[in-house]
Amino acid sequence: MKLPTNLQNVIEQFSKLPGVGEKTATRQALIMANWDAEELMAFGESVSRLSMIQKCSICGLLSDENKCSICTDESRSYSRTICVVESTVDCLAIEKSDQFKGRYHVLGGVLNPLLGVGPEELNLNLLLERIDREEVNEIIFAINPSVEGDATCSYIKQILPDSVKVERIGFGMPMGGSLEYLDPLTINMAFTNRQEM
Amino acid sequence: MKLPTNLQNVIEQFSKLPGVGEKTATRQALIMANWDAEELMAFGESVSRLSMIQKCSICGLLSDENKCSICTDESRSYSRTICVVESTVDCLAIEKSDQFKGRYHVLGGVLNPLLGVGPEELNLNLLLERIDREEVNEIIFAINPSVEGDATCSYIKQILPDSVKVERIGFGMPMGGSLEYLDPLTINMAFTNRQEM
Repeated sequence: MKLPTNLQNVIEQFSKLPGVGEKTATRQALIMANWDAEELMAFGESVSRLSMIQKCSICGLLSDENKCSICTDESRSYSRTICVVESTVDCLAIEKSDQFKGRYHVLGGVLNPLLGVGPEELNLNLLLERIDREEVNEIIFAINPSVEGDATCSYIKQILPDSVKVERIGFGMPMGGSLEYLDPLTINMAFTNRQEM
Repeated sequence: MKLPTNLQNVIEQFSKLPGVGEKTATRQALIMANWDAEELMAFGESVSRLSMIQKCSICGLLSDENKCSICTDESRSYSRTICVVESTVDCLAIEKSDQFKGRYHVLGGVLNPLLGVGPEELNLNLLLERIDREEVNEIIFAINPSVEGDATCSYIKQILPDSVKVERIGFGMPMGGSLEYLDPLTINMAFTNRQEM
């Protein structure tokens, strides 16, 4: 049996997405086949309009405009601290915690020689310009812990001016975690980073 | 932080899909935000074109044309057996097993009084017409086992002409299954349906 071409096309398109295999894509496409034409049009158009998304010309966050809502937020402009993240999703997660009130800088990845990601591929020139222009005096790395993430932080620290204080977010046991199920590396980190109470 | 509107729209659209929560939708939308405009357009258009899918006027399978590829398949036209399924996906699964060489009939659901699905909501009139016109002498129910599925098979059996042989696919232990992990109901069925060897 040949599936309808229009259905097969949607299945192929959905299969391109991360975490979506042929089965999931088929299920989704078949459910969408029951939607009415208007709903399908709205879905289709929303996807096509994704191409209008830009990167903020200051920090690199995804944005509707040339400058993102954080860089244009007056209440954050006093801050001389920049939080360096790998991607927009990471920034989103940090924003949800409501912890950081400064501005961000999105690297767009981490150094990864095997995948051909060198310093030129990262959004570093703009970072150095900003540090100068915005008189930044503190950089917080909110980069995921991994060999590549660690190397990226070390590399960037080296090229930053000495006047800038460089920090990295703390590693240890997650809140609500259970020692019983924690990996040894995290327990290791938690002991190393113990604090007097 | 406010996500770009164009991104937020896609996240909302994806969240409508079964099994896709806000987190998955966000991850997918952010990855798609890196696609180029052409790819996005192709994805969007494929979804919009889903509204052009029809139901086969004979059997009810989803199809590009007014008649599906199975109903127009000459090599299947000799068969006087119809396999009754709930939906196009079920037909697809059966076709993959390459076991059945007749034609199908899609009910579009099973009887479910609680959800307001009565006999009128199922594709039954066309089935009765076909049995008459195509001189069908055998109906195989390939309906998932459930209270509703069982009731649907019983109901349809009652309204079918007596000349038609009515069968239901066998239930028991799945191939590659392990008794250790099988539910008691299936083991029950497997014992009931034991065969002499």
